[in-house]
Amino acid sequence: MRILPPLFAVLISLSCFAEPAPQSITGQWIFTIQQPDHLFAARGQLTASGRNVSGTADSFPIRGSVDGGNITLELLNPDGSVAIRLGGQSDGAIMKGTAKDSDGMDYTWSAERYPGRSSNRRIIDFTPMSYARFFSGLTPPVLRISAGDTVRTSSIDAGGIDASGKRVSRGGNPLTGPFYVVGALPGDTLVVKLKRITLNRDWAQSGTEIVSNAVAPEYTAGMHRGKGLTGRWHLDAKSGTASIQGGSDAVKALRVPLQPMLGGIGVAPPMQEVSNTRASGSFGGNMDYSRLRKGTTVYLPVYQPGALLLLGDAHAAEGDGELAGDALETSMDFEFTVDVIPNFSLDMPCADDGDSWMVIGIAGSLEEALRRSTTAMATYLEKEHGLNSNEAAMLLGAAMKYDVADVVGDQVSIVARLPKSLIAQLPPGKNLF
Amino acid sequence: MRILPPLFAVLISLSCFAEPAPQSITGQWIFTIQQPDHLFAARGQLTASGRNVSGTADSFPIRGSVDGGNITLELLNPDGSVAIRLGGQSDGAIMKGTAKDSDGMDYTWSAERYPGRSSNRRIIDFTPMSYARFFSGLTPPVLRISAGDTVRTSSIDAGGIDASGKRVSRGGNPLTGPFYVVGALPGDTLVVKLKRITLNRDWAQSGTEIVSNAVAPEYTAGMHRGKGLTGRWHLDAKSGTASIQGGSDAVKALRVPLQPMLGGIGVAPPMQEVSNTRASGSFGGNMDYSRLRKGTTVYLPVYQPGALLLLGDAHAAEGDGELAGDALETSMDFEFTVDVIPNFSLDMPCADDGDSWMVIGIAGSLEEALRRSTTAMATYLEKEHGLNSNEAAMLLGAAMKYDVADVVGDQVSIVARLPKSLIAQLPPGKNLF
Amino acid sequence: MRILPPLFAVLISLSCFAEPAPQSITGQWIFTIQQPDHLFAARGQLTASGRNVSGTADSFPIRGSVDGGNITLELLNPDGSVAIRLGGQSDGAIMKGTAKDSDGMDYTWSAERYPGRSSNRRIIDFTPMSYARFFSGLTPPVLRISAGDTVRTSSIDAGGIDASGKRVSRGGNPLTGPFYVVGALPGDTLVVKLKRITLNRDWAQSGTEIVSNAVAPEYTAGMHRGKGLTGRWHLDAKSGTASIQGGSDAVKALRVPLQPMLGGIGVAPPMQEVSNTRASGSFGGNMDYSRLRKGTTVYLPVYQPGALLLLGDAHAAEGDGELAGDALETSMDFEFTVDVIPNFSLDMPCADDGDSWMVIGIAGSLEEALRRSTTAMATYLEKEHGLNSNEAAMLLGAAMKYDVADVVGDQVSIVARLPKSLIAQLPPGKNLF
Amino acid sequence: MRILPPLFAVLISLSCFAEPAPQSITGQWIFTIQQPDHLFAARGQLTASGRNVSGTADSFPIRGSVDGGNITLELLNPDGSVAIRLGGQSDGAIMKGTAKDSDGMDYTWSAERYPGRSSNRRIIDFTPMSYARFFSGLTPPVLRISAGDTVRTSSIDAGGIDASGKRVSRGGNPLTGPFYVVGALPGDTLVVKLKRITLNRDWAQSGTEIVSNAVAPEYTAGMHRGKGLTGRWHLDAKSGTASIQGGSDAVKALRVPLQPMLGGIGVAPPMQEVSNTRASGSFGGNMDYSRLRKGTTVYLPVYQPGALLLLGDAHAAEGDGELAGDALETSMDFEFTVDVIPNFSLDMPCADDGDSWMVIGIAGSLEEALRRSTTAMATYLEKEHGLNSNEAAMLLGAAMKYDVADVVGDQVSIVARLPKSLIAQLPPGKNLF
Repeated sequence: MRILPPLFAVLISLSCFAEPAPQSITGQWIFTIQQPDHLFAARGQLTASGRNVSGTADSFPIRGSVDGGNITLELLNPDGSVAIRLGGQSDGAIMKGTAKDSDGMDYTWSAERYPGRSSNRRIIDFTPMSYARFFSGLTPPVLRISAGDTVRTSSIDAGGIDASGKRVSRGGNPLTGPFYVVGALPGDTLVVKLKRITLNRDWAQSGTEIVSNAVAPEYTAGMHRGKGLTGRWHLDAKSGTASIQGGSDAVKALRVPLQPMLGGIGVAPPMQEVSNTRASGSFGGNMDYSRLRKGTTVYLPVYQPGALLLLGDAHAAEGDGELAGDALETSMDFEFTVDVIPNFSLDMPCADDGDSWMVIGIAGSLEEALRRSTTAMATYLEKEHGLNSNEAAMLLGAAMKYDVADVVGDQVSIVARLPKSLIAQLPPGKNLF
Repeated sequence: MRILPPLFAVLISLSCFAEPAPQSITGQWIFTIQQPDHLFAARGQLTASGRNVSGTADSFPIRGSVDGGNITLELLNPDGSVAIRLGGQSDGAIMKGTAKDSDGMDYTWSAERYPGRSSNRRIIDFTPMSYARFFSGLTPPVLRISAGDTVRTSSIDAGGIDASGKRVSRGGNPLTGPFYVVGALPGDTLVVKLKRITLNRDWAQSGTEIVSNAVAPEYTAGMHRGKGLTGRWHLDAKSGTASIQGGSDAVKALRVPLQPMLGGIGVAPPMQEVSNTRASGSFGGNMDYSRLRKGTTVYLPVYQPGALLLLGDAHAAEGDGELAGDALETSMDFEFTVDVIPNFSLDMPCADDGDSWMVIGIAGSLEEALRRSTTAMATYLEKEHGLNSNEAAMLLGAAMKYDVADVVGDQVSIVARLPKSLIAQLPPGKNLF
Repeated sequence: MRILPPLFAVLISLSCFAEPAPQSITGQWIFTIQQPDHLFAARGQLTASGRNVSGTADSFPIRGSVDGGNITLELLNPDGSVAIRLGGQSDGAIMKGTAKDSDGMDYTWSAERYPGRSSNRRIIDFTPMSYARFFSGLTPPVLRISAGDTVRTSSIDAGGIDASGKRVSRGGNPLTGPFYVVGALPGDTLVVKLKRITLNRDWAQSGTEIVSNAVAPEYTAGMHRGKGLTGRWHLDAKSGTASIQGGSDAVKALRVPLQPMLGGIGVAPPMQEVSNTRASGSFGGNMDYSRLRKGTTVYLPVYQPGALLLLGDAHAAEGDGELAGDALETSMDFEFTVDVIPNFSLDMPCADDGDSWMVIGIAGSLEEALRRSTTAMATYLEKEHGLNSNEAAMLLGAAMKYDVADVVGDQVSIVARLPKSLIAQLPPGKNLF
Repeated sequence: MRILPPLFAVLISLSCFAEPAPQSITGQWIFTIQQPDHLFAARGQLTASGRNVSGTADSFPIRGSVDGGNITLELLNPDGSVAIRLGGQSDGAIMKGTAKDSDGMDYTWSAERYPGRSSNRRIIDFTPMSYARFFSGLTPPVLRISAGDTVRTSSIDAGGIDASGKRVSRGGNPLTGPFYVVGALPGDTLVVKLKRITLNRDWAQSGTEIVSNAVAPEYTAGMHRGKGLTGRWHLDAKSGTASIQGGSDAVKALRVPLQPMLGGIGVAPPMQEVSNTRASGSFGGNMDYSRLRKGTTVYLPVYQPGALLLLGDAHAAEGDGELAGDALETSMDFEFTVDVIPNFSLDMPCADDGDSWMVIGIAGSLEEALRRSTTAMATYLEKEHGLNSNEAAMLLGAAMKYDVADVVGDQVSIVARLPKSLIAQLPPGKNLF
């Protein structure tokens, strides 16, 4: 079994279909240069004029030559000296080869066409055959999509059980994906609009004890346990409510409103790092935030080429904090559209549900999570809308809300939330709103 | 200057008006026995039949005798032995004297008539002449009120400035009161319904920097300060909005919705403890919670006879956390009604705004504040509505919300909030709802 | 019963012994002016020349006149105008009377002779007759002492039980004192050298469960309880060890080294604030720090005239954190010497045991306690020894230690501790070392 | 480039040297069965008698047959049915092949001889050629060692600079290893005795600012920065001290004692998880604990076959908390011996320096880190030495110490430390002491 970084895997498979006849290499490209401890990735463009090639990759000017399928490119330093020299072959869709930098170090490199934003926005029906339990740059993507594309797919529940009640994966939040978003590069923001999240079965499973870090230890030690309670909920899509199965008379009449949401939305973390899908961080992940529901747009920092988006861990309803450890875990059908904001990153997960702009602070303690979300919100107002720090303080002090999204696990999250009606009264943002 | 515990001060002043002619002592009384380190306070009732007296004080049977203004009462142990013997005088409204317990220790004691719930609910206009800066059992009350009474009064702002802009107190959250609620005893719950909170001036003053514990230290170190900003807001009651005075163009158009509230509502803490009015705790205090507004009913544990209620620190608007240290601090007119739930205490501040039942957890850290509010909410569901711990976990995990009320100062607060529409689907509460 | 601020109580009792014949008022005095919400206290000196009096109180120049026992003093503003005019009587040892400030407000004032540092250092044997359960400016002092004096006294245990096993106070950390240190004023540092702490009985009582906030809730819920264990320890002064009474065979051979210490050392907190003796804060209090033992000198900020020092809550031994809620609580004999550093305050408790300089950070969370102690230690190095912040960082990063003194209760404490051998290599301190 | 799990890589290389002639397969083996989402690893033993094979792998009985180099093995369920059937080849040192379980799923499997504890303890000189920046089960090992072996090697500093001052790696705590410890399996404890840690250059580099989470934000905002300070220390091995280079006169005379230690010691985390070497967790990692020095034995849970031990990040001295972000970072020579305790795991890093037994609690907050270390220490006393929870509470409350090892980064650590002299008075441990 060969485990390859996803881009290379994709390149290999694509190159099987590549035309033998050389095409012009003029156009937009994404370059990747694999260094031992670092992946250089850059958007660029090339113009071929006869055998001569010129262009750029990020801030580097390029000069080079093409001869049939053989290509040579030099990325230049500001002083005109050669930073790195790439040699290889092109089939018009893919280029790859070896590189040598000014220190004499050798690398491999490749490039693929950068499609830009999809002009004909596709709607793709995708039936998952496998599920991912790790956010990782090494997980092979299940589908390549482009900015503007909409995907209609489904998720199994956090325990690995699908709509029909069959276990199809180990538990621990198996997610759907990863989706490789062509053109998404480190330093960009991936935009994921949740267009629809729909129940596809009539039951959910929740925890039956409040997680011990959210109550006094004496409460945990002295719990009054009920008999016959398994954590199972009946979901009634018609009335839009959930009811506890097997409870005592005290909860017989209780009907909790349904509010379908996705608990897990994230991308591959930086570099070689790998997190399991029960974890969360600046890459998103197991955020378990009840406002990540139909109509909400999620913004995630991109750390790996293609972003490698995973989604799932659907909840039929969830209170703040996901207090019982598991919310109303169920399988769902859902639909999302992706987009990319190039060269802009808030470096933490954000969201917009039309009413509020939300910044999701994730850390090892509530104190630190709150500091992160507040800092990011204040910084956002300053950088995007031009407020000074005092004005930001006055606005946030008068009108910002916090949500305690998740208190389960090693990372907890507090969301800073500001009404968009107030943001609309500020000067327009540079990148958002 | 004599500083006296409030009850004694009141008794002394009342006794000046007491009739010399003895009246029957039959009726309801509140007894207090001052021990060196402890104040015993109890509701009781006495029945005089000729010279013989019988009755109870809390669980103690009473037997005794009355002879003109002279009275002797014995509180009895379960085995019929005398726990403590009280001797003294009664004028019909007040009794007082000295006591000796079974160990031969001497105390002073007193009793006053317990009015029960006011049958003719009074509306009292009260113009404060002084303000309190400490929650303390030693602060003399400014007004005696009874359950059912409504008080119409006003508060100055947190800096001590009144509606006319005149400084009438030192700053640090000077509050209106204390109001002595006749019949409120330790172990009871004081119920304060906020019937009206109205602006009485057109400006407010807020902080201009996010408190340093709510942002990354690097943010505080690198703030982009604006010029000319003093934290002053213009309040426009007509449009119901507030606007920043002296800000840059970025905030010129900004209009933040007004939401008048009281930041400080509390009673005297237990025993000899004294807290300044910038502090908060199980006694309430500087909770700075934006949902303590018109229409909200606040529930506070009573720790001292009469409760000694203080209110004020009005805010024209406040985001979660009171992030700028001071919210939109202003003076207000307000109106509240008090009630007492005898022999029932949740031992922490709670509130009900019609939509939600709220438990306010106050502690030295967000983690601990969250644990306290969650524990209290779960315990409430179990004790009042008969759920077992697993059912409580499922309900809270599916539908409870948290508010981060206040992150300023040595105590922070997190509120657990549950929709009353869900509580209404549970069996009726024993003491509430 | 009249509850008076301690100074006034003392003045009243002292004035009974005052000579009727007027003496010269030349000399050092301590002035106190009681304002409604504030106590002005200042060291000063007066020189009488005939009927004319001149001098200072803090930074205020004084001019005045004396006529027999009648005295008039004016405290002057920098521009020569009168800030406040004091009129009253002097008996040579005490002055008191009424005052009127430039706004026409009326106050009471008094002054007493300031002895300076005791030239003949007294050794005072003091047998406590009562114990204090609150740190408060209102608690009447049990003894007046001066800088340089040594007191030999004793403490009962945290439960109120004395050396003979008799309960002589309610529990909750009853402490010995308050000791009124003549000449200690707000803004000063009180220096308390613990010269001796000696067992005076052969048993101690500890908790038998780890406090729930120091272990995982699951541990508390699943504890393996032993039978017959009451928390009682046998103390063997001869071998210097303690052994568990009534334990299983597993602890039969266990002998834990004795290390007598005082858990509670504190002064009255600022203004009207009152804290019970289970609490701690910048005023010291229930610090429960095992290094506050024989040979250690404790530094406390003074917030009230006379400081009002309380000591006690002795422990025969204590691990970090006082994990079992109660350490090895016992009664002790102890001996301490007091001193005052005028006009210098670190605003938090500090200590020196010869080996280390310790700054005790007390707060609602470990994170904040650590921040406070680190900040104070860095600030100390900068202000006292002239290091810049980078040098302080390098020194602390290379050699500072933390102790987790106390994790029990609403306040926890973390101590920053720096070897004195390193401090000795720095430029001499301005006020210390 | 083929990235393979380390065991497979090793097997491939080893198999090149394997003898073609079949040997008896009798003996001890380590089996690994690679399932899609899980690696089954087990110690076992086989006995060949003619063509028949019997034995065990963990709790599974084995039956099978051998025919020349071809081997068939069946792992049996308790009821005697076949759980999984392995078929493949053996060269006497290595077996491998394919497997099919009772559900018909196909896997690959392999087995290698399990050497047990090295009878001739080797001393291996190892000169690192590369450094690892991630704890990962995917990193190919640099050396295979056995229990009892001693390795003499070196580390570069946290910034990637070696003894000669040459940068030989990217920064971020490049560590030496991974060392594959033959026979270490998930569920075991890896024992690493640090026999020697020696300076190999005369300078170190530290941070020059206290990390912002360890001081008040106001301190960070108002730092008094010095000029000319780069964080460089001169290390004088002869006097055993370090001195600040380029500091002001205030620190000219300062000589801080050297105390060489390793900041980073860890193994590969569970499953596919990957952590960078700046992180820490139950697998150890960047613990930055000053007591991990010469003479200390470190105990780490094993999560991957071979453990995959990394060591380095040497510090010439470090105060508690690694306050300046970087301690006195330098390169070192060091020597360690490994051992394995089979089928025993404390599931968190522990250490023993002869004086103290230490349990290292690592978490996202000091509160949680303290809870983890206390819980583990109490559990250790109960499970290993037979104390009940009350006795453990009394002992820990009387004598346990905490060290605040590290406050830098997303994980912080608090160490619970108990004198071994006290442990020696308890019944002997089942697995330790």
